[in-house]
Amino acid sequence: MVRVGILGAAGYTGGELIRVLVHHPEVEIVFANSESNAGNRVADVHEGLLGDTELRFTDQMPFDQVDVVFFCFGHGKSEAFLQEHTIPAHVKIIDLAQDFRLKGDHDYVYGLPEMSRDAIRQCQHLANPGCFATCIQLGLLPLAQAGLLTHDIAVNAITGSTGAGQKPGATTHFSWRNDNMSVYKLFAHQHLHEITQTLNELAPASAPHVADPLTEGYDTDGITVDFIPYRGDFARGIFCTEVVKLDQPQSADSIVALYKDYYRDAAFTHYCDAAPDLKQVVGTNKALVHVEVFGRKVVITSMIDNLLKGAVGQAVQNMNLMFGLNEKAGLGLKAIAF
Amino acid sequence: MVRVGILGAAGYTGGELIRVLVHHPEVEIVFANSESNAGNRVADVHEGLLGDTELRFTDQMPFDQVDVVFFCFGHGKSEAFLQEHTIPAHVKIIDLAQDFRLKGDHDYVYGLPEMSRDAIRQCQHLANPGCFATCIQLGLLPLAQAGLLTHDIAVNAITGSTGAGQKPGATTHFSWRNDNMSVYKLFAHQHLHEITQTLNELAPASAPHVADPLTEGYDTDGITVDFIPYRGDFARGIFCTEVVKLDQPQSADSIVALYKDYYRDAAFTHYCDAAPDLKQVVGTNKALVHVEVFGRKVVITSMIDNLLKGAVGQAVQNMNLMFGLNEKAGLGLKAIAF
Amino acid sequence: MVRVGILGAAGYTGGELIRVLVHHPEVEIVFANSESNAGNRVADVHEGLLGDTELRFTDQMPFDQVDVVFFCFGHGKSEAFLQEHTIPAHVKIIDLAQDFRLKGDHDYVYGLPEMSRDAIRQCQHLANPGCFATCIQLGLLPLAQAGLLTHDIAVNAITGSTGAGQKPGATTHFSWRNDNMSVYKLFAHQHLHEITQTLNELAPASAPHVADPLTEGYDTDGITVDFIPYRGDFARGIFCTEVVKLDQPQSADSIVALYKDYYRDAAFTHYCDAAPDLKQVVGTNKALVHVEVFGRKVVITSMIDNLLKGAVGQAVQNMNLMFGLNEKAGLGLKAIAF
Amino acid sequence: MVRVGILGAAGYTGGELIRVLVHHPEVEIVFANSESNAGNRVADVHEGLLGDTELRFTDQMPFDQVDVVFFCFGHGKSEAFLQEHTIPAHVKIIDLAQDFRLKGDHDYVYGLPEMSRDAIRQCQHLANPGCFATCIQLGLLPLAQAGLLTHDIAVNAITGSTGAGQKPGATTHFSWRNDNMSVYKLFAHQHLHEITQTLNELAPASAPHVADPLTEGYDTDGITVDFIPYRGDFARGIFCTEVVKLDQPQSADSIVALYKDYYRDAAFTHYCDAAPDLKQVVGTNKALVHVEVFGRKVVITSMIDNLLKGAVGQAVQNMNLMFGLNEKAGLGLKAIAF
Repeated sequence: MVRVGILGAAGYTGGELIRVLVHHPEVEIVFANSESNAGNRVADVHEGLLGDTELRFTDQMPFDQVDVVFFCFGHGKSEAFLQEHTIPAHVKIIDLAQDFRLKGDHDYVYGLPEMSRDAIRQCQHLANPGCFATCIQLGLLPLAQAGLLTHDIAVNAITGSTGAGQKPGATTHFSWRNDNMSVYKLFAHQHLHEITQTLNELAPASAPHVADPLTEGYDTDGITVDFIPYRGDFARGIFCTEVVKLDQPQSADSIVALYKDYYRDAAFTHYCDAAPDLKQVVGTNKALVHVEVFGRKVVITSMIDNLLKGAVGQAVQNMNLMFGLNEKAGLGLKAIAF
Repeated sequence: MVRVGILGAAGYTGGELIRVLVHHPEVEIVFANSESNAGNRVADVHEGLLGDTELRFTDQMPFDQVDVVFFCFGHGKSEAFLQEHTIPAHVKIIDLAQDFRLKGDHDYVYGLPEMSRDAIRQCQHLANPGCFATCIQLGLLPLAQAGLLTHDIAVNAITGSTGAGQKPGATTHFSWRNDNMSVYKLFAHQHLHEITQTLNELAPASAPHVADPLTEGYDTDGITVDFIPYRGDFARGIFCTEVVKLDQPQSADSIVALYKDYYRDAAFTHYCDAAPDLKQVVGTNKALVHVEVFGRKVVITSMIDNLLKGAVGQAVQNMNLMFGLNEKAGLGLKAIAF
Repeated sequence: MVRVGILGAAGYTGGELIRVLVHHPEVEIVFANSESNAGNRVADVHEGLLGDTELRFTDQMPFDQVDVVFFCFGHGKSEAFLQEHTIPAHVKIIDLAQDFRLKGDHDYVYGLPEMSRDAIRQCQHLANPGCFATCIQLGLLPLAQAGLLTHDIAVNAITGSTGAGQKPGATTHFSWRNDNMSVYKLFAHQHLHEITQTLNELAPASAPHVADPLTEGYDTDGITVDFIPYRGDFARGIFCTEVVKLDQPQSADSIVALYKDYYRDAAFTHYCDAAPDLKQVVGTNKALVHVEVFGRKVVITSMIDNLLKGAVGQAVQNMNLMFGLNEKAGLGLKAIAF
Repeated sequence: MVRVGILGAAGYTGGELIRVLVHHPEVEIVFANSESNAGNRVADVHEGLLGDTELRFTDQMPFDQVDVVFFCFGHGKSEAFLQEHTIPAHVKIIDLAQDFRLKGDHDYVYGLPEMSRDAIRQCQHLANPGCFATCIQLGLLPLAQAGLLTHDIAVNAITGSTGAGQKPGATTHFSWRNDNMSVYKLFAHQHLHEITQTLNELAPASAPHVADPLTEGYDTDGITVDFIPYRGDFARGIFCTEVVKLDQPQSADSIVALYKDYYRDAAFTHYCDAAPDLKQVVGTNKALVHVEVFGRKVVITSMIDNLLKGAVGQAVQNMNLMFGLNEKAGLGLKAIAF
């Protein structure tokens, strides 16, 4: 049994993590830390856990009793936490925030199993990817590796409201969001950092530089990911299209073959022959990817559950890899479907 | 032209009132008061008004320039406002809050046109009914008048999220409310006050007393309205069923005739032969009522748009009556339907 | 491993059953029968199964290779099927339709574990309860057993669209149903048969007869379940309130104690201290029950996922009991929550 | 009063047209033709009309009694109808189908007032634009006229379910569509015909040819509109983004000025300084347009109600122009907003 500690356990991702882990056959939750909820029953705070666990939140952090700690903090707080606290070296860390996703003066591995499964298996510290970033990268990885990203990429991605977190606000008010659509952080979403990092890392040396527009701007010699995020009127899921322009026309078959080959051994990412819909992945840790070709344009559709493959499910998948468990352990989640 | 002033114009009902009044052929909005939004364009604050009005909020209250003032305050603030301000005697007041709905030491007429159209026509001060109260009363008025309310009445009413107002909170968070159902203020909703007041007022002397359980409790000799309010996962509308037990079985025809007769001259309340659905009224000032009879049980279905017939639309209907206009002026609202 | 065959496998409940069983640790699906889909991949027909199974539909029915057969036919077709086919005596049958729910000239046990767990454990043939019937009965069982059902019972239950099945129609058209509410089969839903059967069976001899209004009418000496079914604008779940009138006032504590005691050993039905909401059970096999008392009125809230505890999940729970497995095996389903 | 006849009056657009026209102050509906519903009350067939009209469907077509006929047929049936019937020359025709939208051997004017108001005022026969086509064109017209469309245009547009019409089907089943997202007719939507026709017509001679990929393919020398249509999980509205690449960077101010100038006199299309959301237009005949600039990329957001500005509302706007009425007559529709 992997002994687990959870920090920030009273938040959205904390709750979803507990909902997954209480049914994981090889995990014991040792502590769920939350100062503000210390003493309260987890099932009284997190929707859907009544009858599944008698666990209570604690303000303690007994790191010596665990094998791994999940950081479910808000962005920026993981690094701050580590400056004030010492976690024993043998305890693995899985950080769900964005603090260590970009390479730098740290040893965190970027936890996208479809790109770095071996490195994840051997790492001690892991930075779990962002939800949009996961979905968009899974749509582009095979083309990046093949050196086929040579023009600006049009990305449109629609997210459920859980992507906006737990705190109520104007754009998560039901009266406003129900039946509504809008865009936000147009061409400026922070996940562009990790997306461009991955695309450059995976591409052959001959491929053009993918510019990070947040640091390099849009007047650049590199190619850019032109990312429009939309607020969707559903709670869970990210539905994404990516349009890539090729230098030369290629057959649909050859492009599809690239995708099928790339994801042949993926545990949760599947190429889908027919155009998929979002609810095929909601409630699961799966990603579905579909491709069509029109002249020199490749149109990819990719989709995930933002709280699972886009956050907690991928974190557990990474934990499974880090501890040598079956990659799918505890993640045989029934699709909601309807 | 009726010259209108609006207090509390930056709130939910304020916004909906402006959305109705900008298209009213016989109204001029003289001022829309909001201290916090003074100077801002109304169309920048209230969804859906761009292109309809160049009006700006003001912190002034030029009562001498208007014929009527709408109070769109939160509950309890109308009375407080009147203690601190003087409104000229010739200016009519329409209060959308609950402050003057119960009879007392004031001259406000309870503004349910289906019950008191004549009194409304002659009144200077009007208390606009609550949304649930409107919908439930319209389901029960004909039976009350006929003296047929002699047993406890089972009322189940499902409301849209706009009933909870503009301020975001846990139960209006999209991630929670979407696809969800719950109950609240079980057997204890404050609208029971005005409902019981009306039922007792309308009933013949021989009918049993309808107890107000909020003041008399449920261990009472009177009959009670057993009201379960539900939070629905839609934004607009109240859908209500009322079950009334008769002393003696009566034919469905005779009961239906009571309803058709009662609402024969109603401007917006219609008896519906087939079982109606909520979206037939959404976006309009209409109420639909339908009745079926099983043995000694009469089952009524009633429905309104909570922001229109349940608030702003009824307020404008009352204004039309108070100024001798066509009762339907400005209220020929297209049904949203889908 | 329990070897399973599924008839009617291409329908809604067939699909949901497969979504559950592919992750059940002690089940092997031997065949999924569908004539019209024979040869097609199950994952191409049923949403959410891509990557979970390579199973294909078959038009064969190799009963000699299975331990249990699930009937996922439409209502009325199970009995017809058995008249035309012979299933070996050692093969257990779990029928999800209504054909054998009422006692009669057959040996099917009514499969509500909260009432008949021991009989289920020993039965060979099982009739799985209806969705509304499950939710309503779970709200009333403790009071029935205590002999406290002595007056007509007001039941209001709101169901998701999946209750209406797979075939598209006017009331399941998204454009109509979205944001809408309506009632149907008012006081006449067919589940009243099984509900009244249970309440009479469970009640002490001294309790009044519960009339089945579908056969006895509403002008009856017995008490009646006055059931109003609503179409909700969500896909999954049934949310129900039941109002029971007692002969004598009782303390809330004593009533709550009845419920806690009755469900003490239930695997999936939990008493909830705070008022629950529907999404606490969506995606799971759980039922939640909550009680409040006002004078002589007991107000119960009960809720389930109609496709799981109301159909497929309960069928698997019954299968677990019939084969001596852990009652919860394969049913540790993550709550969708949002 | 304009005397109106409606053909195909029992369909979706027929219903919405009646919902608008019953409140139009200068219109009398003379007949609403539907063979299958002849004799039935319109209010019994079309949601939301109870209390608004006593009109009944007829199988007659008294063209001599009307000034204008609206064709609310399915696509392809308008032309067929005209081959079998003769409409008096003085009766104007407004066709809501796509039969006459492309220039050809006919005198129908393409009815987009923001482009051709004068021609519309003088025309006898009018082809009302498609819903997607309206929304996308309104996002691109100012750039087209300025000759700034010189590269492929990325268009993503999400439509409500009413765009799929009245007939229930798999992708309009509530259980499937609720909370779901999907794409369809990828790069192949039939509205590309009319969109490319407009862009070429409006552009200066020096601008590159906009290819119609449905007839010219995507391997073309012209630029293409790369259009991805999405099925949204709401009933009404189209929300669209268009990304245009300029040859040279231009200031945001200069681009915004183009839009404000182009739509200065538009009756219903408004430039919006802040990023708008879809529900600002739902229930109205408005279009909102917003622009942001990143390097050489112009990102436009445009949105309409697909049944109003995208169909019926625009048809009535065109009727107003054709009869010399105030362009806004009968179209002062209250925004639903929530």
